[in-house]
Amino acid sequence: MEMQRLKCTMAYDGTDFFGYQIQPNNRTVQEEVENTLKKLHKGKDVKIFASGRTDAGVHAKGQVFHFDTHLDIPAEKWPIALNSMLPNDVAILDAEKVENEFHARFDVKGKEYRYFINPATKRDPFSRNYSASFPFPVDVVAIQEAMKSLVGTHDFTSFCSAKTEVEDKVRTIYELELIEENGLLVFRFVGSGFLYNMVRIISGTLLEVGNGKRMSSCISEIIEKRDRIYAGKTAPAQGLYLWKVNY
Amino acid sequence: MEMQRLKCTMAYDGTDFFGYQIQPNNRTVQEEVENTLKKLHKGKDVKIFASGRTDAGVHAKGQVFHFDTHLDIPAEKWPIALNSMLPNDVAILDAEKVENEFHARFDVKGKEYRYFINPATKRDPFSRNYSASFPFPVDVVAIQEAMKSLVGTHDFTSFCSAKTEVEDKVRTIYELELIEENGLLVFRFVGSGFLYNMVRIISGTLLEVGNGKRMSSCISEIIEKRDRIYAGKTAPAQGLYLWKVNY
Repeated sequence: MEMQRLKCTMAYDGTDFFGYQIQPNNRTVQEEVENTLKKLHKGKDVKIFASGRTDAGVHAKGQVFHFDTHLDIPAEKWPIALNSMLPNDVAILDAEKVENEFHARFDVKGKEYRYFINPATKRDPFSRNYSASFPFPVDVVAIQEAMKSLVGTHDFTSFCSAKTEVEDKVRTIYELELIEENGLLVFRFVGSGFLYNMVRIISGTLLEVGNGKRMSSCISEIIEKRDRIYAGKTAPAQGLYLWKVNY
Repeated sequence: MEMQRLKCTMAYDGTDFFGYQIQPNNRTVQEEVENTLKKLHKGKDVKIFASGRTDAGVHAKGQVFHFDTHLDIPAEKWPIALNSMLPNDVAILDAEKVENEFHARFDVKGKEYRYFINPATKRDPFSRNYSASFPFPVDVVAIQEAMKSLVGTHDFTSFCSAKTEVEDKVRTIYELELIEENGLLVFRFVGSGFLYNMVRIISGTLLEVGNGKRMSSCISEIIEKRDRIYAGKTAPAQGLYLWKVNY
C-alpha cells in the first residue's frame, strides 16, 4: 500500500489534559492520538501534525491534524477505528485523504475561536470546566463598541503573552462578535491567526469593558502601546474553544 | 446562640464523586460538605441529612439536606460561607432556617428526576459525563405511549434493582414526559419516591421501546411480572439528575 496523507478533524474536552502538545509525565492530546495510531500500526511510531497547540484546560470542537499511513483503510473508516481505541474525552469527527503536500499547520488560512462566559450569579458546578464565570452585570453595547476597534489588521503585541516568541505580531481579525446563547455569553473570533494567549487576553479585556472598569475607547490606545501590561487580565483557559480551522 | 436547623439546596457534578453517601477511601459529596462544616465549626463534627443518596456519577441540580448549628450566621449567608470553602463541583444554592422538627429525608413528599440522552451519532467528548449516548433512531410517539402505562400507582418491583432492600415497592409516578431540548432527549419523572435504580431502569426500558426492540404495550406486562429480569437495561449513571425535592 502506497503512503497516504490523512487530514483529521477532532474534538476534545481539555479538562483532563495538560494541553495539546506532548510533554513528559503529563497527559496530552497529542500523546493519546499518537499512542492509538501506534497500536493500529503494530507498534510503529506515527507522528501527527496539528494546526497549532492548545493550552491546558482549553477545548477543541474542530482541531485539525494530519498524519501519514501505509495502512489500507478507507478515509471514512478512520474515525471509527480511532474512536474505538481513544479515551472518551477525544473524538475524531472526520477524516479525509489529502495531497501529500498538505500540512495541517503551514497551510492554515485562518481560525475560529469561541470564548464562553457564564454570567450567572449562582455558582454552577456544571459549567466550571466549560466556561468562565463572570457573575457581574455586562454592558453588551459597550463590548460591541470595543470590538469594532479590534477588527482588522493590527499589531497585537499588547494582546499577547509577553513570552510570545514570534517576531511578527501583526494579525488580522476578520470577524468578532458577541453572541448570547443558552444563558451564556460567547465571543466569536475569526482571524488569520492568533498569538499566544491572544483570545484570552482580548476576552479578559472585553469583560473589563463590559463591567465598566474600562471604556470602549481604551482598545485603540492599548493597541498603540504595544505592551502587554496595558491590556486586561488573561481570561481563564476553560472558557476557550478552538472552534474551526480554515484551509 | 441557640441551636438552629438549616435546610440547604445543593447542586453537584457527580462525575468525580463515588456518589453522595460517605464511604471509606472514596471521595463523596457528604464527606466534602461535612468536612467544610467541620472547619466552620472549629473542628466540631457536624452531620448532614440528605433527602436520599445518589450513586457514583449521578448529578444533582436540587439535592436537599439539613443540619444543626449553633453558629450565629444568618441563613442567607450560609451559601456564601460554604461555597467559599467547598470544591467547585459542589454548590450550595440556597439555605433557609426551618423548624427543629424538619427532616430532609423523612419529610420528603416527592422528587423530580431528569434523565438526559444524547441521540447524536457523532461522538461528543463534551457530553460524555452529562448524558447517556444513544446514537439510534428514537420513536418518540412509541415512548410517549409506553410512558402512559407507568404513570400512576404501581408495584415497581420489575423496575428496581434486585438488590433493593425495602419491602414495599409500591410507588406513584405523578408525571412522566419526554422533552426535547438543545438536541438532547430528556425523560422527566415526578413521583412520590423512587426505588433503587428505578429511574435508570425505566429510562433504559423506554429507550428499548424507542428503538423498536420492545413494543409500547410491554410496560404493563413487565409491571405485572414483578421481576427485574423482564425490564430493560439499567441506563448509565451519567444521564441521571436529581432535579428537585418536594416537601
